[in-house]
Amino acid sequence: MLIVMKSGATDDDIARVVEVVESLGMKAHPMPGANRTAIGITGNTTAIDSSPFADLTGVAECVRVTKPYKLVSRELRPDKSVITVGDATIGGDEFAIIAGVCAVESREQTMSTARVVAEQGCKFFRGGAFKPRTSPYAFQGLAEEGLKILRDVREEFGLMIVSEAIDEPALDLVEKYADVIQIGTRNMQNFSLLRRAGQARKPVLLKRGMASTIEEFLLAAEYIMSEGNYNVILCERGVRTFANHTRFTLDLSLIPAVQRISHLPIIVDPSHSTGTREKVIPLSRAGAAVGADGLLVDVHPHPEQALCDGPQALLFDMFKEMVGEVRAIAKIVRS
Amino acid sequence: MLIVMKSGATDDDIARVVEVVESLGMKAHPMPGANRTAIGITGNTTAIDSSPFADLTGVAECVRVTKPYKLVSRELRPDKSVITVGDATIGGDEFAIIAGVCAVESREQTMSTARVVAEQGCKFFRGGAFKPRTSPYAFQGLAEEGLKILRDVREEFGLMIVSEAIDEPALDLVEKYADVIQIGTRNMQNFSLLRRAGQARKPVLLKRGMASTIEEFLLAAEYIMSEGNYNVILCERGVRTFANHTRFTLDLSLIPAVQRISHLPIIVDPSHSTGTREKVIPLSRAGAAVGADGLLVDVHPHPEQALCDGPQALLFDMFKEMVGEVRAIAKIVRS
Amino acid sequence: MLIVMKSGATDDDIARVVEVVESLGMKAHPMPGANRTAIGITGNTTAIDSSPFADLTGVAECVRVTKPYKLVSRELRPDKSVITVGDATIGGDEFAIIAGVCAVESREQTMSTARVVAEQGCKFFRGGAFKPRTSPYAFQGLAEEGLKILRDVREEFGLMIVSEAIDEPALDLVEKYADVIQIGTRNMQNFSLLRRAGQARKPVLLKRGMASTIEEFLLAAEYIMSEGNYNVILCERGVRTFANHTRFTLDLSLIPAVQRISHLPIIVDPSHSTGTREKVIPLSRAGAAVGADGLLVDVHPHPEQALCDGPQALLFDMFKEMVGEVRAIAKIVRS
Amino acid sequence: MLIVMKSGATDDDIARVVEVVESLGMKAHPMPGANRTAIGITGNTTAIDSSPFADLTGVAECVRVTKPYKLVSRELRPDKSVITVGDATIGGDEFAIIAGVCAVESREQTMSTARVVAEQGCKFFRGGAFKPRTSPYAFQGLAEEGLKILRDVREEFGLMIVSEAIDEPALDLVEKYADVIQIGTRNMQNFSLLRRAGQARKPVLLKRGMASTIEEFLLAAEYIMSEGNYNVILCERGVRTFANHTRFTLDLSLIPAVQRISHLPIIVDPSHSTGTREKVIPLSRAGAAVGADGLLVDVHPHPEQALCDGPQALLFDMFKEMVGEVRAIAKIVRS
Repeated sequence: MLIVMKSGATDDDIARVVEVVESLGMKAHPMPGANRTAIGITGNTTAIDSSPFADLTGVAECVRVTKPYKLVSRELRPDKSVITVGDATIGGDEFAIIAGVCAVESREQTMSTARVVAEQGCKFFRGGAFKPRTSPYAFQGLAEEGLKILRDVREEFGLMIVSEAIDEPALDLVEKYADVIQIGTRNMQNFSLLRRAGQARKPVLLKRGMASTIEEFLLAAEYIMSEGNYNVILCERGVRTFANHTRFTLDLSLIPAVQRISHLPIIVDPSHSTGTREKVIPLSRAGAAVGADGLLVDVHPHPEQALCDGPQALLFDMFKEMVGEVRAIAKIVRS
Repeated sequence: MLIVMKSGATDDDIARVVEVVESLGMKAHPMPGANRTAIGITGNTTAIDSSPFADLTGVAECVRVTKPYKLVSRELRPDKSVITVGDATIGGDEFAIIAGVCAVESREQTMSTARVVAEQGCKFFRGGAFKPRTSPYAFQGLAEEGLKILRDVREEFGLMIVSEAIDEPALDLVEKYADVIQIGTRNMQNFSLLRRAGQARKPVLLKRGMASTIEEFLLAAEYIMSEGNYNVILCERGVRTFANHTRFTLDLSLIPAVQRISHLPIIVDPSHSTGTREKVIPLSRAGAAVGADGLLVDVHPHPEQALCDGPQALLFDMFKEMVGEVRAIAKIVRS
Repeated sequence: MLIVMKSGATDDDIARVVEVVESLGMKAHPMPGANRTAIGITGNTTAIDSSPFADLTGVAECVRVTKPYKLVSRELRPDKSVITVGDATIGGDEFAIIAGVCAVESREQTMSTARVVAEQGCKFFRGGAFKPRTSPYAFQGLAEEGLKILRDVREEFGLMIVSEAIDEPALDLVEKYADVIQIGTRNMQNFSLLRRAGQARKPVLLKRGMASTIEEFLLAAEYIMSEGNYNVILCERGVRTFANHTRFTLDLSLIPAVQRISHLPIIVDPSHSTGTREKVIPLSRAGAAVGADGLLVDVHPHPEQALCDGPQALLFDMFKEMVGEVRAIAKIVRS
Repeated sequence: MLIVMKSGATDDDIARVVEVVESLGMKAHPMPGANRTAIGITGNTTAIDSSPFADLTGVAECVRVTKPYKLVSRELRPDKSVITVGDATIGGDEFAIIAGVCAVESREQTMSTARVVAEQGCKFFRGGAFKPRTSPYAFQGLAEEGLKILRDVREEFGLMIVSEAIDEPALDLVEKYADVIQIGTRNMQNFSLLRRAGQARKPVLLKRGMASTIEEFLLAAEYIMSEGNYNVILCERGVRTFANHTRFTLDLSLIPAVQRISHLPIIVDPSHSTGTREKVIPLSRAGAAVGADGLLVDVHPHPEQALCDGPQALLFDMFKEMVGEVRAIAKIVRS
């Protein structure tokens, strides 16, 4: 159920609706929009009767939601969500380039990369302190030590930090040190972790599972939002197919498909999908062209020495070239 | 690195090797076999030097492991692992039928199903108390209350209980009440949960991820084993493909492929893969015929009222028919 | 539209219906069943008016067909089709083992394989004279010379010959020399070739395309049947997925799915799907267990010298073992 | 084997090499490049001995080709191939927009669409006269009558005609009336048709099979080229995956992957891949951005009345918008 308020509804009107929803043992999710506020209701176990709400002051209409997702939906919020992180935004006019190291390996590697990212005028830095690795014997990240280096990146360069949480203890730490909490592909349906992220006070960057349908992806975001954290950024990072010329098949058609259904911003990861750096620039351009709200891209000062995913990291010069091309294209698309 | 002991090596010889491994800051995993014990070494960050081990009493040879997986491998343990649960086994001569309810919904539904399972001479009962659901608004399971019902199933019918853990708190409870801890498809690469399962004292049933390669699947088992729990049962449950006549495409070729590489037992789930009950019997037969060590199958007294995955649950009569056919086939294959 | 005749309808009644259908510019396809004959109508460009047929003698009812396929459907023919080839059958009580060489390479290789196949009591021999090869530079088959060797196999061993046609000139020759015309995976949607096969006087073995849905597969069979050749045998041979432990992923769930919708017999090819011989025996057993009507399997006297697909060909001893196991399983399933 | 000529080699030198190749029963394929000519050799059944060529005048070196493809490869021709059609090109500086109707349904529909295409300054018109349809009962195209309408499009608007051939008789007609012969997805491995296309005097537009690897795709082009027709244009049109928000998953990473290996131009079809028009504009932009050499796109005056694939056809206004955006992006990428 979705309660659409009149455009002139007051804060008190909204508060009254929330109160009634909660008195019935359910949860209210007010979503202010450009013209009106809508209030999503979750926590019901059966269909909701609209009669307790229909006559409240300021209520325009009660809409039955037929899709399995509610809070992610354009039905609830027709305008696009703009996520604000410090003085940067994702989902607004600006095209967000989130660049950095796949894994934080050392202070030197991280700082030198951050300097290049900042020099290009980018506002976000990515760096993994907890790495979900296929093998138990592979490098698993520097953990809190890595997060401290990332905190110093923010202090030195003013970059907003995006870092992955692989479990609840890691999420506690990432929430403490970083600005955006990343939930990775392999955890897209780790529902306990999604709920925990939904209780966090920081935006969540949610990557699509490698075999996830659009509905499963949006419902994973719904898990986060249903706990009250509405700042979710989606990320397409390639799906698993038979094709063997890339690690994963980047599915750019997801961008317009999501934008039609959901108000959430969506970005593209051309690095993990392709797995080889020479394909990263073309697919970054394509990501900007298809209408994504940003990119998540790996850069490394010495990729041949990287402890994780070196072959996909852009060299500094390639990164600069990419930023220039991508911004020119984003300008055409977003105007 | 893998240290193969002579057939006449004593327990003291083995203990001495373990001691030396640990003194070097690594972990030793002794695996007794029919003819000899092999000792896997993990926890090294670089290649291991064999010289400290080569001359120890009872050591036959030191073998470099070239595959990313070590403990799951036939190199370490040429004989098949037989997992013992109470007086039942999986991976031995017997074909294991693990049958029961997808979700524990009520005492009556669970007990009536368990009675039928026990009457057919099956030794394992499955029932979910924690359900990983795509939507945050779907039935999530009865949690501890459900586990208590399952405990009563064991007491009344002597059936060994298999139940899924979706996060660490759930795993604590499942370990307490059940006999086998199931890790589901969506958590196959939840590495923190795998490590926690590796510290459990009960066998783990690990389901293949819906887009997992054989290598990723075996490495997920390796995560569990690397923590010291060697009682891992693998389960093929279908992979995601374009084919739309079933929910997932059951990949029975995985069974001989795994058996060639790994000593771990592997079973088949015909219920979740197909999604419709009329395909469950044929694919159960096929699972027995391909050489799997058992089945994991849903049964329900009133599938049309099931809170989760009703269409795939066998009716009682279908279940009885299935058991008869499957045992006749298993007898041919396992003789 | 489908016209169901009364059980007592005479040949004259049926002939009269056919005549009326044809007088309206459409095509009639009478399908005799155990209890009654049904007549499919194709060639209409818009919905058919039932009034010209409703009152004809012997007509029981006129049924609107809502599925895109008509002639393949159980709606038209509730009983399973049994395809007769010489004194052998496919789709009846007997489990059909079609074994032989992937490619006819020489008289000696073909004859020695045929002897083993015949000695095991099999009734069909497969052998390719025209090979659809991914590379233009690979061995393309012996063409008519190969077909003459196959003709001699029939003469010497009484085996029915199954051979692939890759284009219309090849089909002319295969129709002349062989007993069953095979249409391969890569030609499943070569609609001109399907139409030509529909005009042939011999049964057609149609392999599923490597990314074909069940609907596309059945409609490919419908192309053949719509030209008047109702003797179509379907064959599952694996689909393309991300899984890399086999060449293709054998989708055994297709067998019960097809059997629910269609009266056509369906067999399994465990050789081309797996690509390695040690997986062929387990998947042959699984094919029999799932309820397929037969197998299509590669055998070779010296696989290491094979010009095409050697690694998947069974050695003679493996073939004998397989036949024994498969027949024991088929006996359980088909009783 | 590949014979690289010196930059100063004369036509006579080349002719002499060709002569020697042919005298050995093989086929020579001279490929002139910007700096030097290379001569591919096909038709050998075993490895070629370089000694007959090494000392011929003008020969720089003899290179063994290790990949299964030869003529498509950058090893043979380091410069990109530019295909000339009338006064238009594909693969050169210009971004080629091939737009038109999926199926020619009537003179009016075709002419009105062609007018819009020409007004936008596009140089190619697509229109299907032979439609490969999944169902035998669906509209199959106007055949020669359709081709005559397309011929009139060329005469009236000066547009170069691209039309699909589904079998050899159709190819004869398409070759007669059209300027570029299209081979569709379902025929990508119809090797007889590929060979026939290789004997045609007109360029061939080859669409990727819906489950084709990059190697299979390039080898399909190699079939055409091995018959002497070097004017092949590749086309990515989406592959089959589990994703259900589009008909096929457009795999834009194929473009840089092909460009690295092959000199052939490659374009993108955003219409058949997505299946819905609102996704066609974003993916057209992405196709231009990723570096493709052009687009193949469906337009229709009244898509709701289309006999084939209406939902994916752009309306005239959408087409104009798309052309403007795509050209602006192509300008950035191709400069």
